[in-house]
Amino acid sequence: MTREQAEQALAECRRKIDQLDLELRALLNRRAEIAEEIVRAKIVLGVPVRQPKREDEVIGKVTGENPGPLGADGLRRIFECIMQEIRELESSRLPEDKPEGTPDPKGIPEW
Amino acid sequence: MTREQAEQALAECRRKIDQLDLELRALLNRRAEIAEEIVRAKIVLGVPVRQPKREDEVIGKVTGENPGPLGADGLRRIFECIMQEIRELESSRLPEDKPEGTPDPKGIPEW
Repeated sequence: MTREQAEQALAECRRKIDQLDLELRALLNRRAEIAEEIVRAKIVLGVPVRQPKREDEVIGKVTGENPGPLGADGLRRIFECIMQEIRELESSRLPEDKPEGTPDPKGIPEW
Repeated sequence: MTREQAEQALAECRRKIDQLDLELRALLNRRAEIAEEIVRAKIVLGVPVRQPKREDEVIGKVTGENPGPLGADGLRRIFECIMQEIRELESSRLPEDKPEGTPDPKGIPEW
């Protein structure tokens, strides 16, 4: 690889990364939207919003049959970070008078 | 929303999340592959592998014109986590006798 080829490769790779990051952001925002629907359903069912067993299941699905190059530990840390940020978003939107997991007798919460 | 509707919504949302997580994993692995190509180019060019200014640019692109619901701070933390894991993957693959940023006079490294 010559210097010129390396410069071209670097610029091309950065364009690809920028495009890919916007796709990642779209998926992350979509995931956060679905997580909000899940919270609504859980409140109606009166089950806790946070369910560590389900979080373990999510990590297991992501790290299983993974082609790489990211390894299981790296993926686990990234998905833990994603779930943590989505939880923080959810708790910032929970009504203050509704503790996590409280069933709502009236049905759908307004938020 | 009745209990039955909430149970159905919960199951459907979880199916969507599982599918979406596999798409996220594919993009993350693709990003890691491109990052490896970038490291090769940087070694040929003799520039440091880690370039904090470019990392700031990446975060700026992702947090700019973001439709949400994830906010800029949450996205920044997620992308910092992603970049951190990809850096760790890269350093685990760098040859021990080649310090970060050392130009390779022979061209492409073998890894």
